[in-house]
Amino acid sequence: MLPDSVLDRIAAELYDYQGSGQSVMEMSHRSPIFMDIFEKTKEHFRKSLSIPDTHEVLFLQGGATTQFAAIPLNLMKESADYAVTGNFSGIAAKEATKYGKIHICADTSDSNHTEIPEQSGINFSENPSYFHYCENNTIYGTQWNYVPTAPTTLVCDMSSNILSKPVDVSKFGMIYAGAQKNMAPAGLTVVIIDKKLAGNQAPSTPMMFNYEQQIKAGSMVNTPSCFPIYVLGLTLDWVDQMGGLAAMEERTRTRANKLYEIIDNSKLFTAPAKVSARSHMNVTFRGTTPELDKQFLEQANKQGLVNLAGHRVVGGMRASIYNAVPTEGVEKLGQLIAMFDK
Amino acid sequence: MLPDSVLDRIAAELYDYQGSGQSVMEMSHRSPIFMDIFEKTKEHFRKSLSIPDTHEVLFLQGGATTQFAAIPLNLMKESADYAVTGNFSGIAAKEATKYGKIHICADTSDSNHTEIPEQSGINFSENPSYFHYCENNTIYGTQWNYVPTAPTTLVCDMSSNILSKPVDVSKFGMIYAGAQKNMAPAGLTVVIIDKKLAGNQAPSTPMMFNYEQQIKAGSMVNTPSCFPIYVLGLTLDWVDQMGGLAAMEERTRTRANKLYEIIDNSKLFTAPAKVSARSHMNVTFRGTTPELDKQFLEQANKQGLVNLAGHRVVGGMRASIYNAVPTEGVEKLGQLIAMFDK
Repeated sequence: MLPDSVLDRIAAELYDYQGSGQSVMEMSHRSPIFMDIFEKTKEHFRKSLSIPDTHEVLFLQGGATTQFAAIPLNLMKESADYAVTGNFSGIAAKEATKYGKIHICADTSDSNHTEIPEQSGINFSENPSYFHYCENNTIYGTQWNYVPTAPTTLVCDMSSNILSKPVDVSKFGMIYAGAQKNMAPAGLTVVIIDKKLAGNQAPSTPMMFNYEQQIKAGSMVNTPSCFPIYVLGLTLDWVDQMGGLAAMEERTRTRANKLYEIIDNSKLFTAPAKVSARSHMNVTFRGTTPELDKQFLEQANKQGLVNLAGHRVVGGMRASIYNAVPTEGVEKLGQLIAMFDK
Repeated sequence: MLPDSVLDRIAAELYDYQGSGQSVMEMSHRSPIFMDIFEKTKEHFRKSLSIPDTHEVLFLQGGATTQFAAIPLNLMKESADYAVTGNFSGIAAKEATKYGKIHICADTSDSNHTEIPEQSGINFSENPSYFHYCENNTIYGTQWNYVPTAPTTLVCDMSSNILSKPVDVSKFGMIYAGAQKNMAPAGLTVVIIDKKLAGNQAPSTPMMFNYEQQIKAGSMVNTPSCFPIYVLGLTLDWVDQMGGLAAMEERTRTRANKLYEIIDNSKLFTAPAKVSARSHMNVTFRGTTPELDKQFLEQANKQGLVNLAGHRVVGGMRASIYNAVPTEGVEKLGQLIAMFDK
């Protein structure tokens, strides 16, 4: 979803962006008018996340999955440590094995990814180039509720929870996120990288993956995904109107916890994720029987609550309450769960 | 530019795509409603270009520059032949050297890329895995006005002239194109590939670059660039309304030739590209002095003819008359050239 105010501004500027006579969809990426959008969006993003001067922001393409290869190609000398706590962190680790030695330093497969490792449960290897984890697991509905301490560079996939809370960027060597959950339509990937990490890429690194080259080119090694960059700017305006990232965090936590409370008090539904590992973005739950899940999904659909089926690997239900989902929608879902229980 | 009718449809469906209650910008890429858009667009694209069943169509991200690495990673055994006839074909050849032995079988640098090699001027090597060329050179304003015959697989970058004419796809192992000239907003790359070429990728090929994997996943190894795919569908409808690709070719050729005629008859302006190599998409020309170019660009700007400055490496003027540029705009430019000459 996009916030209503974002769609309204897209609509208002669709034919003529601020008197330019052009749609943003038609602008040359090197035109002064688009460069202004680009730079302002980048500055706004930096400000919203309080990104220190040590770190650069890149607007790239290809989604987080593209970064799964770009990260080891740029950052790995010989080996790296990966925590596997869900679907995408597992794919990231597997992809990295093409480029070096990967040590799985934490793995929650045994619990079907219903938990998140404690700090003491992460078994770091000797001298890994970095430690990679995915902060929020969309399919399993878990999230890292703390920033782990590692004896190496922290690299974090925040695709599904970026802009849902403040982040201490200085703790991370790199943060990256696909845009399509909380930022903009699909087609944009945001990379926040400590500049001192750039420049060590393998010789076989594609130029599009080369962080040093992208930093030098201001993300324009080729034409970037202009329109989603513009929409990100509109989304950042909306986040400001909502009170900024601290307010977003409060809103996100409050509404997720309300859902968990209703589920915990219910006799018919349970949330599989451990309490300490519960995601604030993706609330997964299931009924006592598959038939009940089916009935619930049918009723939800009738009430306009769509896309609630859990991912095929886990079944049940999943409420993805990304930023743009209105709180009334979350409340309506809570009422439906309570009603079923009654 | 986008055709007016395409922008009108984007506007009409912006809040609510065909009664779905969602904007295309908000749809899950795996939802039935988006899958319907995706499959219909793909089928329409296949039909417009008469793509044979031997070839698959992929909707990827990252622009043509991403393919510059993906092509050798997937298709090159030991070596490949490249024709360097402009800026992007030169970058493509350089990028490919990371992955194998590259033989430059034709190079027009000596003429400052004002010509295109004749068939007899291409010096193919022994057993190259493929021959790569870029059909239209946007900066220099030249194009291959014939499909070369090669003793190997033909791979062609058609980023800047796709959908401007019919193509005999069966002659090519692979055709690829960034969307942002003639198809849709930036963020989408279309790949047309002979299926029998897939499956030979190097072990280090990123999964996102792996044609075999993308074919199996129906271009959805991860979330594709959904919105530009939707716009491509709208553009294909517009091309049909214009009479299809044969009519587009006639229109393109007619208006380019009219401009060249005016320039050829002028005493103040010349077109540097050789007659046999002239592009129908990018008409480059220059005045007798840099001062004249400056005056011309100023006057053009006043008349609403924008983005006419030549690329910084060549200077002068460049009229990029992509499909969506209205013929009246091209005529207005012709009149301005003639007026200056008078």
